[in-house]
Amino acid sequence: MTGPRYTALAQTLPATVPFVGPEAQERAMAKEFRARLGANENIFGPSPRAIDAMKQASDGIWMYADPESFELRHALAELHGVAAENIVVGEGIDGLLGYLVRLLVEQGDTVVTSEGAYPTFNYHVAGFGGELHKVLYRDDHEDLPALLAKAAEVDAKLVYFANPDNPMGTWISGEAIVAALEALPEGALLVLDEAYVEFAPEGTAPVIDIEDPRVIRMRTFSKAYGMAGARVGYAMGAADLIRNFEKIRNHFGMNRAAQAGALAALHDDEWLNATCEKVVGARAEITRIAAENGLVALPSATNFVAIDCGRDGAYAKAVLDGLVARGVFVRMPFVVPQNRCIRVSCGPRAEMAILAEALPLVLAELG
Amino acid sequence: MTGPRYTALAQTLPATVPFVGPEAQERAMAKEFRARLGANENIFGPSPRAIDAMKQASDGIWMYADPESFELRHALAELHGVAAENIVVGEGIDGLLGYLVRLLVEQGDTVVTSEGAYPTFNYHVAGFGGELHKVLYRDDHEDLPALLAKAAEVDAKLVYFANPDNPMGTWISGEAIVAALEALPEGALLVLDEAYVEFAPEGTAPVIDIEDPRVIRMRTFSKAYGMAGARVGYAMGAADLIRNFEKIRNHFGMNRAAQAGALAALHDDEWLNATCEKVVGARAEITRIAAENGLVALPSATNFVAIDCGRDGAYAKAVLDGLVARGVFVRMPFVVPQNRCIRVSCGPRAEMAILAEALPLVLAELG
Repeated sequence: MTGPRYTALAQTLPATVPFVGPEAQERAMAKEFRARLGANENIFGPSPRAIDAMKQASDGIWMYADPESFELRHALAELHGVAAENIVVGEGIDGLLGYLVRLLVEQGDTVVTSEGAYPTFNYHVAGFGGELHKVLYRDDHEDLPALLAKAAEVDAKLVYFANPDNPMGTWISGEAIVAALEALPEGALLVLDEAYVEFAPEGTAPVIDIEDPRVIRMRTFSKAYGMAGARVGYAMGAADLIRNFEKIRNHFGMNRAAQAGALAALHDDEWLNATCEKVVGARAEITRIAAENGLVALPSATNFVAIDCGRDGAYAKAVLDGLVARGVFVRMPFVVPQNRCIRVSCGPRAEMAILAEALPLVLAELG
Repeated sequence: MTGPRYTALAQTLPATVPFVGPEAQERAMAKEFRARLGANENIFGPSPRAIDAMKQASDGIWMYADPESFELRHALAELHGVAAENIVVGEGIDGLLGYLVRLLVEQGDTVVTSEGAYPTFNYHVAGFGGELHKVLYRDDHEDLPALLAKAAEVDAKLVYFANPDNPMGTWISGEAIVAALEALPEGALLVLDEAYVEFAPEGTAPVIDIEDPRVIRMRTFSKAYGMAGARVGYAMGAADLIRNFEKIRNHFGMNRAAQAGALAALHDDEWLNATCEKVVGARAEITRIAAENGLVALPSATNFVAIDCGRDGAYAKAVLDGLVARGVFVRMPFVVPQNRCIRVSCGPRAEMAILAEALPLVLAELG
């Protein structure tokens, strides 16, 4: 008996995981983290209204979710001043990136991103046989003009750009994006990943006509709305582009309670604003802790801060390992020179205090 | 400005939906259904322990779910007497079928299913460019020997077989499946969709070595466990096959509360057994209601019953429309001759009473 006959592409793919979860690390260490600051989760949590809505919806979990996410899409449309036809809701930005890549990329098609940017996007591109071309960060920023120039050079179908950026937390203005767009080559689609944009200064989100066929924007309830475990993301773009997701998406992929929670979260601006203020405070606190230890925190427009450990990647990795060993879950950038940093999520005072206590011990140990 | 450049395949796909949700019908009618009996949801609902677990997990929804679904996979492995490496958890069977098709099917590859069987499987096959070959039902049963003969004839990579079947509710014994497997051609993988198997008589699930490379089994928490809105399914098969899902799945696609709910549901056998007993009672009740109205209900091993309306598809559709107009959501098979039936989900007395009240009115109206 032989096994199944996989596609030629599937046979070439590695069984890798974009990120190992903190739970796997906890199992390996046989203890729980004291502070979970590695996955850019929002420890301040979602609106209590969202939690209530999820709990109430749990009583009706015997029902499938509305496959059209009708109410949520309409609420999002109202929020953004667009039509519901401009919005598709999916299983987090991760799920939507997978659908988008599937719609556009077949074997050998070219895609452009930054060296060291979001690995899950790369995972999907590889998973559909796309050829990734990577551009270096410039001064710890994703370099949009360089990305667009590369796209022209390699005739890219897709260009990935996150604003604000992950893992560095840096950002550019919406106006700069609009200006740069003029250089987007014909036939390329810009994926603007705005997972963290609610944390960013006014003006970070560009003003772009929703029917502009050159751009698709990705948003999520995982970050500012504090619902990472719910898996609710959405994409906004031209109605024709959004309609194409209907051809391939898992129409019954959404969790019913998550839909209800997201809808309730949208109706609690006060909580969202308060969260963003708390994040500003926590960023300042991380920056202070870094400085107290002779390290420099990068300016951030997200709910995490990249701390420059001042030496090379091996040293930053040693700092990370020391923090992990002390029960502080953090992650770090993958590539030179960004990997001189560790990446720390914002959190309430208790978590920040654990960081403040652990970091000097780790640094002292490393000498 | 031109739009995005879609793949050749994406350009050929229709923007169809495998199923229109009841919510869309409710919006069109501008009223809610009185009885939701069309989607084979389990109206008896999940274990209260599962609901409690989901509510508790909602408080921690700011955290991503464990991407490995470690605890749930290990609990499932224990339940089935296999290794955790033999199980992958995903966003419902729908999500897992999509991943499976993606792993095996590229453009022009052949796949075999039954004419009138689960449309979402067909949706995924079409979505990856597979060529579907369909075999007719025999006496309202999916015809496994004919499916395997067709697979040999067309050199199929995948053969879909649901046991018990949806939409007819019919089934064959596990022993018959094991015997038939001998005729599965080399290089074909049998997808055994067991979404409803917990409702079926002892012996319906075949005894097959988990490392047998010829079969992959799909299970779900949507039916007997009553958690359709949670989106938790799993596939069981040879470790090498299961490992391949790691290459392409959305590792962070699972809802954290859903994971917790599924785990708790697994630990409430009593509830599961009681649900299955209630379903037996409801099947008898639907059969009685049908008979009272001069109609014949088919024997069922699922939580729904196909009622033979005794004439052609147009008549059954008229019966269905009449029920829908009276606030009773039901669905029906798509193809001749199964489309002489309507398909009614089991439910508590209140829902069954609504059916009992509406059906004679509809039939009288139709004459």
